[in-house]
Amino acid sequence: MQSEPIHDIAHLGHVEMLTPKFEESRRFFIDVMGMTQSGEKGDSVYLRGWDDYERYSLKLTAAKTSGLGHAAFRTRSPQALERRAAALTGSGFDVGWTNGDLGHGKTFVFKDPDGHRFEIYYETEWYEAPPELKPALKNQAQAYPARGINARRIDHFNGLAVDIKANREFFQNYLGFMLTEQIVLDDGTEAGMWMTATNKSYDFAYTRDHAADVFLENGVYIETGPHKHAIQQTFFLYVYEPGGNRVEVSCAGARLVLAPDWKPITWSEAERKKGQAWGLQTIRSFHTKGTPPVPGLPES
Amino acid sequence: MQSEPIHDIAHLGHVEMLTPKFEESRRFFIDVMGMTQSGEKGDSVYLRGWDDYERYSLKLTAAKTSGLGHAAFRTRSPQALERRAAALTGSGFDVGWTNGDLGHGKTFVFKDPDGHRFEIYYETEWYEAPPELKPALKNQAQAYPARGINARRIDHFNGLAVDIKANREFFQNYLGFMLTEQIVLDDGTEAGMWMTATNKSYDFAYTRDHAADVFLENGVYIETGPHKHAIQQTFFLYVYEPGGNRVEVSCAGARLVLAPDWKPITWSEAERKKGQAWGLQTIRSFHTKGTPPVPGLPES
Amino acid sequence: MQSEPIHDIAHLGHVEMLTPKFEESRRFFIDVMGMTQSGEKGDSVYLRGWDDYERYSLKLTAAKTSGLGHAAFRTRSPQALERRAAALTGSGFDVGWTNGDLGHGKTFVFKDPDGHRFEIYYETEWYEAPPELKPALKNQAQAYPARGINARRIDHFNGLAVDIKANREFFQNYLGFMLTEQIVLDDGTEAGMWMTATNKSYDFAYTRDHAADVFLENGVYIETGPHKHAIQQTFFLYVYEPGGNRVEVSCAGARLVLAPDWKPITWSEAERKKGQAWGLQTIRSFHTKGTPPVPGLPES
Amino acid sequence: MQSEPIHDIAHLGHVEMLTPKFEESRRFFIDVMGMTQSGEKGDSVYLRGWDDYERYSLKLTAAKTSGLGHAAFRTRSPQALERRAAALTGSGFDVGWTNGDLGHGKTFVFKDPDGHRFEIYYETEWYEAPPELKPALKNQAQAYPARGINARRIDHFNGLAVDIKANREFFQNYLGFMLTEQIVLDDGTEAGMWMTATNKSYDFAYTRDHAADVFLENGVYIETGPHKHAIQQTFFLYVYEPGGNRVEVSCAGARLVLAPDWKPITWSEAERKKGQAWGLQTIRSFHTKGTPPVPGLPES
Repeated sequence: MQSEPIHDIAHLGHVEMLTPKFEESRRFFIDVMGMTQSGEKGDSVYLRGWDDYERYSLKLTAAKTSGLGHAAFRTRSPQALERRAAALTGSGFDVGWTNGDLGHGKTFVFKDPDGHRFEIYYETEWYEAPPELKPALKNQAQAYPARGINARRIDHFNGLAVDIKANREFFQNYLGFMLTEQIVLDDGTEAGMWMTATNKSYDFAYTRDHAADVFLENGVYIETGPHKHAIQQTFFLYVYEPGGNRVEVSCAGARLVLAPDWKPITWSEAERKKGQAWGLQTIRSFHTKGTPPVPGLPES
Repeated sequence: MQSEPIHDIAHLGHVEMLTPKFEESRRFFIDVMGMTQSGEKGDSVYLRGWDDYERYSLKLTAAKTSGLGHAAFRTRSPQALERRAAALTGSGFDVGWTNGDLGHGKTFVFKDPDGHRFEIYYETEWYEAPPELKPALKNQAQAYPARGINARRIDHFNGLAVDIKANREFFQNYLGFMLTEQIVLDDGTEAGMWMTATNKSYDFAYTRDHAADVFLENGVYIETGPHKHAIQQTFFLYVYEPGGNRVEVSCAGARLVLAPDWKPITWSEAERKKGQAWGLQTIRSFHTKGTPPVPGLPES
Repeated sequence: MQSEPIHDIAHLGHVEMLTPKFEESRRFFIDVMGMTQSGEKGDSVYLRGWDDYERYSLKLTAAKTSGLGHAAFRTRSPQALERRAAALTGSGFDVGWTNGDLGHGKTFVFKDPDGHRFEIYYETEWYEAPPELKPALKNQAQAYPARGINARRIDHFNGLAVDIKANREFFQNYLGFMLTEQIVLDDGTEAGMWMTATNKSYDFAYTRDHAADVFLENGVYIETGPHKHAIQQTFFLYVYEPGGNRVEVSCAGARLVLAPDWKPITWSEAERKKGQAWGLQTIRSFHTKGTPPVPGLPES
Repeated sequence: MQSEPIHDIAHLGHVEMLTPKFEESRRFFIDVMGMTQSGEKGDSVYLRGWDDYERYSLKLTAAKTSGLGHAAFRTRSPQALERRAAALTGSGFDVGWTNGDLGHGKTFVFKDPDGHRFEIYYETEWYEAPPELKPALKNQAQAYPARGINARRIDHFNGLAVDIKANREFFQNYLGFMLTEQIVLDDGTEAGMWMTATNKSYDFAYTRDHAADVFLENGVYIETGPHKHAIQQTFFLYVYEPGGNRVEVSCAGARLVLAPDWKPITWSEAERKKGQAWGLQTIRSFHTKGTPPVPGLPES
């Protein structure tokens, strides 16, 4: 009989985004994205969507460059946290325990094969809205802001990695993520992966890094969209926040992955060349623009 | 340390609906609801929404009366099925093992404290669309029907029960469902419960039975809605299918319950008297009309 | 051969709303409705939806009571203005010429059979957005505010009148409005009318006054909706602004009346008793609550 | 004082589309577009959207090639028809009177400077739904089909012309259409025009013909979209019906042109190079693919 799947990760909790234009990025997430500031510490502010149940889902940190500081997942239980930490300890990917951060308790830190920093934690602070942000219905964390695009919650992040296969196996084996869709080139190389720990069809995605081509844009602009992704069928719009990080506004519609044994959908090179769901070609900059920018290449 | 939650149920798989007007009900689900017939056996036809991954999600069975035949949940693994069966065996709620039905394998049958029949199974048949129903995108089970209201998938069912508390404890303890919201009257009596095993905010709900008041309507009509539920915030519309069963067309929007330790929202009598999210009173027939009809009361 | 229809009215230009809670009403229209203040004079402020091409569409005036100050229509040409003024002069409904108001030129004033005050004008000031409100596309008057409900433009107003037939004939004969739908009771009494001068299915509506029953509510609340009107099929939501005036948020969808000889739809008593499009009964307060409040009756 | 605008055209009534694949085109408009066949005569079938008040809005005619047979506008009155006929008679553009066609009465035929054939008429047959297509609400022409994309009504057509300025002046002077937006190149050449006789922002559009580049595609496919036009801000999707004609599915949202003296928006070359509203470049085939195909060029 097949071994049982791991169910220790509950969901993506927050990401830390680095920005060289701190105040402009902060205003972007508050005024344009419609998020609410719910904390401040050191060089960071903490922001939340109106339907996030935890205190925050975005940590914005002043830095010399744009980029992803880290991503954090909440586990399903204290025991689940211990199990994952134990599995990672000694693997060479482990960094170790910390006492946590604003809003969450003890945390185990590790890096994936590509060197991105991750954290897992269980203890968390549920958001308590101040009087002026109390919602009308008691089953909602915060009043609807009616400001900007009213971002509801964090959904997923998207990273670049040199070795997709190594990362896929890492997240499957050590964390128990399920692969829902992937791109496999004609020579067998894996070029993209979409992983989930929830009923959403992905909690994060990695596509292959084309770092030699990285370039940066000036200003905030719409990179592409709105359109419907073929992979995962999400409606999407890509914009750049002032610090240079790409932000995706997405709407999954009613799509859920409910099958506990979902069979990964594999897309070939030929299929990818057909473009997105309705024929739009994937914009070139999606494969060439990432953060942090690569030193020596032109910057905004 | 708290004990770990049970994660053995993957999702609601299908419901069996009884109908005294078999052909009219079948046409209703195909023509109006936009479902697709994917099987036929004995007195039953099997129907599916275009995004259901299993072969079917609705078993429609000819019967002398309307009502719910049974509801079936798929487990997360074969081991999970064995664990739940073991927990139920000897509890007094267990009925026993069967060889399954069209589309799914061995099945454990049980009844809840109110006597509703349930099934759990793991082995299932993934839907294979015939050539004329092949979808344009490979990550979708079936072509979008563009017929009637294009029902996407089964979402939940809603039952009446005499003792809500007994049922809540049964589903929490034996099956591992999580309570997301409930109604508690001023005298402490539980009057409604919403339970989930997924990231959807409920997979089924029970409200208290007012069977003495049951009455039946003539014809298919819109009972109430569209409106937004206060509890769970779902947009909803209630109609009656020709056999007399209430069918809810619902849209949860982007709402998901991601917290592994969600704290149940409890609604008081006073709060329920305020009506739905925007003030509409819950329609009286919701509390008094159920299927099967009670013998001796007027029938349609 | 039938005589030609009059085509002298272009559209509803603005309404003047009276409020006993001036600052609260002003904040309501700016913060909740998402309108922009574009002028101030005497006891009034002038407000606009982001897609209004004229300087304003709502004049909000401090007063001892709530109510409609006046409604103003723009004519299709200077000649059309003169023609309508000439037709009204000496009719007993005419009040006479004024020099206009902030944002529009010479104006002819008259009253309908029920005594409501109206203005018609042609010369108008096109809105020029200040730099911070410049739109991204040159074919739009103002940047989308992304605040509150982002009211797009004025659509129509709704009045109460004692004698619907007299008002209908007045607006048809003197102004050239077309009747699109009406309610006629079993005894032949007209009880409601929907009139248009555009391709929208109505620019204003009158229903019969039940003034003896007038009552006022405390605070701002949702009176009814969202739902779909049977008459005109508009989606609607009624709220009260702080000054006590009912404000309808409506969405006509794609419905247009294009027929130049549209045949009025007449609804009988029996048909009205069926309620709105999907069965919701018209809320009682719609027939009993109007502004200004009637002296001697209980007030908020 | 400026002369008064002409208000003699009520709206676009129907277009005649030619197709070399008659039965496939007919099925496309019924099954995919969700239209209803409401007549048949000679080599033509007549089709309608569910909210068209006239008997039909699309005449589909078997022909050796794809293309536009003619477009027909309904006038506001019998007198308006006579006035426009009188204005055109002797202009060199006039063809003369006919007795009309299925569904409409006497008709005046003319050609525009580019040679496209047009008809104007007043007498028309209002659609009477057969019992099986009776709507639930009496203010609607026909039951909602719930089939395919449920096309609501004809909105506009789009033509190619060699001399945009000559066509613009023709439609303004002889028919009274209002120009709402246009493209003017840096050298002063007019390259596109959007004209209206209603409150819709356009009833038809012409863009410059690049006939030397015409090519044809195989099969029905999505040419571009969905996206938001910068000009007129319409959401749009272009597909090809089986006969080779481009069909646009569009949604104007709530946008209306209400100003009787709307100032045409003029777009420059530089502005057009920015692409559509959110940056998508206008697809090249929009400028090069038209029907009928040009003999001697490759055909589908």
